[in-house]
Amino acid sequence: MADYRFLLIQALRPPGPPASGPKEAQLMNHADVAPFLDGIAWDLHPGPVAANDFGTAETRAEFAEVGVRRQPIVREACASGKYNAIVLLGGGDPGFIEAREIGQSYGIPVTACAHAQMHVASMLADRFTVLDVAELHNMRMRDAVVQYGFADRCASIRNMHFHLPRPENGDLPAIAGEADKAARGEPSAMLEAGVRAVEAAIEEDGAEAIIIGCSAAYWLQPHLQRRLSASGWQIPILEGYRCAILQAKLLVDLGFAASGLAFPQPRPARWRRRKLV
Amino acid sequence: MADYRFLLIQALRPPGPPASGPKEAQLMNHADVAPFLDGIAWDLHPGPVAANDFGTAETRAEFAEVGVRRQPIVREACASGKYNAIVLLGGGDPGFIEAREIGQSYGIPVTACAHAQMHVASMLADRFTVLDVAELHNMRMRDAVVQYGFADRCASIRNMHFHLPRPENGDLPAIAGEADKAARGEPSAMLEAGVRAVEAAIEEDGAEAIIIGCSAAYWLQPHLQRRLSASGWQIPILEGYRCAILQAKLLVDLGFAASGLAFPQPRPARWRRRKLV
Amino acid sequence: MADYRFLLIQALRPPGPPASGPKEAQLMNHADVAPFLDGIAWDLHPGPVAANDFGTAETRAEFAEVGVRRQPIVREACASGKYNAIVLLGGGDPGFIEAREIGQSYGIPVTACAHAQMHVASMLADRFTVLDVAELHNMRMRDAVVQYGFADRCASIRNMHFHLPRPENGDLPAIAGEADKAARGEPSAMLEAGVRAVEAAIEEDGAEAIIIGCSAAYWLQPHLQRRLSASGWQIPILEGYRCAILQAKLLVDLGFAASGLAFPQPRPARWRRRKLV
Amino acid sequence: MADYRFLLIQALRPPGPPASGPKEAQLMNHADVAPFLDGIAWDLHPGPVAANDFGTAETRAEFAEVGVRRQPIVREACASGKYNAIVLLGGGDPGFIEAREIGQSYGIPVTACAHAQMHVASMLADRFTVLDVAELHNMRMRDAVVQYGFADRCASIRNMHFHLPRPENGDLPAIAGEADKAARGEPSAMLEAGVRAVEAAIEEDGAEAIIIGCSAAYWLQPHLQRRLSASGWQIPILEGYRCAILQAKLLVDLGFAASGLAFPQPRPARWRRRKLV
Amino acid sequence: MADYRFLLIQALRPPGPPASGPKEAQLMNHADVAPFLDGIAWDLHPGPVAANDFGTAETRAEFAEVGVRRQPIVREACASGKYNAIVLLGGGDPGFIEAREIGQSYGIPVTACAHAQMHVASMLADRFTVLDVAELHNMRMRDAVVQYGFADRCASIRNMHFHLPRPENGDLPAIAGEADKAARGEPSAMLEAGVRAVEAAIEEDGAEAIIIGCSAAYWLQPHLQRRLSASGWQIPILEGYRCAILQAKLLVDLGFAASGLAFPQPRPARWRRRKLV
Amino acid sequence: MADYRFLLIQALRPPGPPASGPKEAQLMNHADVAPFLDGIAWDLHPGPVAANDFGTAETRAEFAEVGVRRQPIVREACASGKYNAIVLLGGGDPGFIEAREIGQSYGIPVTACAHAQMHVASMLADRFTVLDVAELHNMRMRDAVVQYGFADRCASIRNMHFHLPRPENGDLPAIAGEADKAARGEPSAMLEAGVRAVEAAIEEDGAEAIIIGCSAAYWLQPHLQRRLSASGWQIPILEGYRCAILQAKLLVDLGFAASGLAFPQPRPARWRRRKLV
Repeated sequence: MADYRFLLIQALRPPGPPASGPKEAQLMNHADVAPFLDGIAWDLHPGPVAANDFGTAETRAEFAEVGVRRQPIVREACASGKYNAIVLLGGGDPGFIEAREIGQSYGIPVTACAHAQMHVASMLADRFTVLDVAELHNMRMRDAVVQYGFADRCASIRNMHFHLPRPENGDLPAIAGEADKAARGEPSAMLEAGVRAVEAAIEEDGAEAIIIGCSAAYWLQPHLQRRLSASGWQIPILEGYRCAILQAKLLVDLGFAASGLAFPQPRPARWRRRKLV
Repeated sequence: MADYRFLLIQALRPPGPPASGPKEAQLMNHADVAPFLDGIAWDLHPGPVAANDFGTAETRAEFAEVGVRRQPIVREACASGKYNAIVLLGGGDPGFIEAREIGQSYGIPVTACAHAQMHVASMLADRFTVLDVAELHNMRMRDAVVQYGFADRCASIRNMHFHLPRPENGDLPAIAGEADKAARGEPSAMLEAGVRAVEAAIEEDGAEAIIIGCSAAYWLQPHLQRRLSASGWQIPILEGYRCAILQAKLLVDLGFAASGLAFPQPRPARWRRRKLV
Repeated sequence: MADYRFLLIQALRPPGPPASGPKEAQLMNHADVAPFLDGIAWDLHPGPVAANDFGTAETRAEFAEVGVRRQPIVREACASGKYNAIVLLGGGDPGFIEAREIGQSYGIPVTACAHAQMHVASMLADRFTVLDVAELHNMRMRDAVVQYGFADRCASIRNMHFHLPRPENGDLPAIAGEADKAARGEPSAMLEAGVRAVEAAIEEDGAEAIIIGCSAAYWLQPHLQRRLSASGWQIPILEGYRCAILQAKLLVDLGFAASGLAFPQPRPARWRRRKLV
Repeated sequence: MADYRFLLIQALRPPGPPASGPKEAQLMNHADVAPFLDGIAWDLHPGPVAANDFGTAETRAEFAEVGVRRQPIVREACASGKYNAIVLLGGGDPGFIEAREIGQSYGIPVTACAHAQMHVASMLADRFTVLDVAELHNMRMRDAVVQYGFADRCASIRNMHFHLPRPENGDLPAIAGEADKAARGEPSAMLEAGVRAVEAAIEEDGAEAIIIGCSAAYWLQPHLQRRLSASGWQIPILEGYRCAILQAKLLVDLGFAASGLAFPQPRPARWRRRKLV
Repeated sequence: MADYRFLLIQALRPPGPPASGPKEAQLMNHADVAPFLDGIAWDLHPGPVAANDFGTAETRAEFAEVGVRRQPIVREACASGKYNAIVLLGGGDPGFIEAREIGQSYGIPVTACAHAQMHVASMLADRFTVLDVAELHNMRMRDAVVQYGFADRCASIRNMHFHLPRPENGDLPAIAGEADKAARGEPSAMLEAGVRAVEAAIEEDGAEAIIIGCSAAYWLQPHLQRRLSASGWQIPILEGYRCAILQAKLLVDLGFAASGLAFPQPRPARWRRRKLV
Repeated sequence: MADYRFLLIQALRPPGPPASGPKEAQLMNHADVAPFLDGIAWDLHPGPVAANDFGTAETRAEFAEVGVRRQPIVREACASGKYNAIVLLGGGDPGFIEAREIGQSYGIPVTACAHAQMHVASMLADRFTVLDVAELHNMRMRDAVVQYGFADRCASIRNMHFHLPRPENGDLPAIAGEADKAARGEPSAMLEAGVRAVEAAIEEDGAEAIIIGCSAAYWLQPHLQRRLSASGWQIPILEGYRCAILQAKLLVDLGFAASGLAFPQPRPARWRRRKLV
């Protein structure tokens, strides 16, 4: 039961050669995530090349393209026999539905950060808010909430208005650098925007748990948790890596990847005359 | 207002050189669809190469890949200035969300067969059933129903158990050849399965309109309409081409591609602090 | 397919002789609507006499009475053989359900402004707000949203608090005169109220498209669209005439008035043991 | 508190002079209903003339017309000062929404049979089925379920296929005469159809209470209750008169007709900027 | 029909001997409730001893314990043959589901204050807000809304932040004494908080009726009704005692305690293969 | 992270002295569950004494009473400092909500079998069916589905009609003995009923995963999984112990018991003016 062999796959990587160096250095916020990887034999795949030059996915088109580029990575990892679970990193779950379908054909569970966060948040609370970065990315989170059947449990998607790199965004508040400021104990405008957004989510939207949308904002988790606790709000702040890793452990322990009726394979042995939605 | 310049894009094409010959010959069931194209200046794009050797899309992975391969076609068509609407052919709407996003950046509406059928069916009736071909394809239709927000109006997805070409399906009932049988007035087992499925949808599931899932089953429309009417059921049978074409005409007339808030572009002029799902 | 012969029926007319003069002069905001009537052979019926002396319908009782008075007009128009679609003008759709039932018996589609706007808005966006005039009228819009099955897609009904003529309303802000002010480029308090209401709908209610409730406010459409666009919000503003006309064209092209199972006629050939809601 | 002065208003009456004779003789199934009228001072109004020659309401058009014809009766009854509640008889609640609006202006509660049954059934059980007579009438019941907000609690509308008088229905199973057969202890095909429909509703649809749709089938109540109990099913069978009378008593005791925000009157003292649906 | 023999059971009583004196003196707000008890032969049971020393129930654990302690009281009352209905006093309905189950085995209806208020509010309006006292109690009201199937009709639970006795709450605003202040015509901070909460519920949450959560706040009803009416809002303010009493009268008149399928007893005569939720 | 110290608490025990012997012998189906307890330091508490003489909980009253009797066990376990999670055994989750509230005050997660199964099933599939034993118990499962917010994901509750001991059930099919028959490879009528119920759930109700209701039927899990797989249905069959254990591990790893806003404690540091349901 305690044999966890996971492949963590980055959402995407910038054009050019993949980063080198130890996997720990390449895993965002490794210090925060390390306890959750304890006891797991894990590899890190750098992910597919991004669909744009600046190495991000925000539009639906970019997310779709990155998702498709992940397929061969997932397929190869499953076929290798080296892993008993695949963890898709990245906030918007590019390629997740297809990856689960592939995983199911090998009996290997595949988890992803938005999906796992929504499930974990639902264990802890009735309604969650997605704390997210910017308008474009919000729409991908909205699509994910709907696809995964969590519209009734999603109180809102809150937009901090901090931005990934993109030519059009040159003069807008940038995500880059904010984590470092916070780590150094300097004021971070993004962290302040996050605190305000979470408080508004609690008081106006009815949020009782927070999940984070874009993985570039996952660094906020410990900071927000401290800040909210300090101000008296007892609300769990989740982020995607820990949830996707923990869900993968659960599914490996359980022994199921997914329902074969929800993820049928070519030529199922039995078929239904009627599928209900 | 009557200036309709449409590009119809096939869902996919088999590997190898694209088909040649007049566009009418390449448009499935052209005789049925021709009246709906009357007054429209239209071109036909053969679509992207399929993600498998047998030239179909059924699994979620195949659908996603074909969807992404459609993006440059849509983008180029929008940029060409030649068209005022794009109609995505094919039953499972591969690439539709992304194509709408692209179209919105040009102010050009993009329509697709499942989406358009669901909207048209909702104008006619409270609940519709998706008449579909096989288990794999059903799941794509299920995903589309959920994504488009029609779960409450979808009575069921009925599975006829007739199959697209796929190595695993060699001995299963095939779609191929059935349309010809029906056209010749010979008995078609697929048509009979369709009639039974529609009657079950009416009597057991509460369907009051029928939409067809896989475009390889669109040929059933006139046959089913006749058969159902003959047996006394007054239920509209839709198919995707006509609905997608008519919706595209409506949107061209209306002058909107989509809401800019539902399909935001990079760096929107205004942004919202909160997105509700 | 391009043979559109429509009868447009006013919601109601004041007591006294019907207005005379060219139909164009009698169609509110004709200049705005004209492009949408291009290519359509249309007649205008002045509608039934209002249920009150001041020539409006706002209470549920007034709406119901006007709706019933429209029945013989619809029936006669269908029986005349002159029209292939009926377009019910007016914001609250008086008599629409009954008129569809009558139309269905002739195979003639009937459209109405609130119903058509909700369907079109749903094509463009996930959620719409109804921009409406006053408390009484809001309730009729609420009833329509519920009856048509759009409660989940309706973000809110926003009340501008501008009033139709009614003895009790003498000292309240009046709709009358506002359109003229706006047309002359003078400040219109109603337009300003509309702008504020739409912005609140976007920012507080999650609206991604706007439909207009009372037809006496349809004149706002081009003004609101300009104002919202100028302030950076990319949100479609609809109004009822264009949507009802375009939906009628679509249904004429499609060849269905409605589902015979949703609008059964006396002695249907087949009957169901169970109707699901 | 025990001062109940009710006017019961028939749904409609056939053309010609209204029936004469004691009110008890004119109230359908008086013997069944009498206990529920105990302690109430009640008058019976014969209702408006039907919208057709055969004295029934089944189509939406007929229901709407009868509903409007009831308005002056309700208004006059409220204005008379003689009654502290109005009970609208008839299964499909013609004119109910408008009558509540009128009643609200006098502070007088108005109840109706379908609405009251749905509320009472919801007190007793999670889901109810509407046992109804025929296809046309089913649609009116469906409209009422939706308008009143009970779609989630309505398991189904079951159709017995027994008919009100209508020229087209001459050779179809008729309601007329069935109550008398059952009263005489003779076999009634309609009662048997009702038993079958209720059992199917329990076993297939999940019904846990039964309400009856058309008032011409209210006579079934005691027979069905006995039959179901005899066969071991412990399910409450409701009918409309008792429920509408009991709800009227409750509202008179309570001292509210309805919410003034749900049924606003011309020129409300306060108004809301936003109505949520 | 007018034979009402009710046992009213308090939610709980403080440790120590039960209060003595006339039942009227022990029934909170007796003067307000008296008219609703007119014509009813009623006894008052002091209820079970509270699960804490300070004689209240607020946490879920306290509510559950008090609920179970009510069971023998309900069972004994049913078995005594003295009563034809049981009315459970108290705002959070402790033990209600179990008490209904017990009552059903005797054919005796059991009503409770939150449940009855939700049903009555739904008769009057589309959406209601629960006006409640404090965070802990709000959660019990939330659980009740969900259990009873009213989530769609519940606009919000508004928290006045006034407190029942509890050691931790010594310095927080207390409910105790507020009713007396208001009765003496002195300013009551709790009443003011209630007015503000109701106005916010109307304007922000879409409430069209108000029910009160904790029975210790039922005294607010006449004051709130006056204040809201004076400020022009025509919204019914309910409280639990009157609603539970009136619902009990209705059920006694009706002759049903509950559906035997919703509250099955050991060894039901018939059983279902499938229960739908 | 791998420090799991769990207390497993039985739902109830028969009157008389608690069973003695090794904990493994007292844990139902220990052989099936053992792999899921691997790596966990666990104790087993025999649970509270049942509310009836025959040592079961089926009625709502019995469930409530057993639930309350569990409170001191949970409280004492939390206070002992010996455990970092509590796992409530038993199918109907008696006392779960209250136990979570208690656990939250210690920061200790509490899991329960029905709740955990619903969450795990939702990770695997869109809709699940509850396979359950008998009518009385079905109602408890229904209550749990509703309370936990899974009504939309619950396809049905299927009733096998096999019974726990109860005086009234003497001649009905009994659960007792069936597991042994199946273990010996003899035919088990209960297993056959389970297979039929699951197949009906798949084909009629749209189930894509199965959870088991009563813990006395958990032994079916491996048998059903084998049988369904053998007949070609690829559907996960869950049972409660493994799901509750795995969920407890996840929550211990995660470091959250529950949201403090969903399970507030006396005198929360911050409070909300509005709770949304």
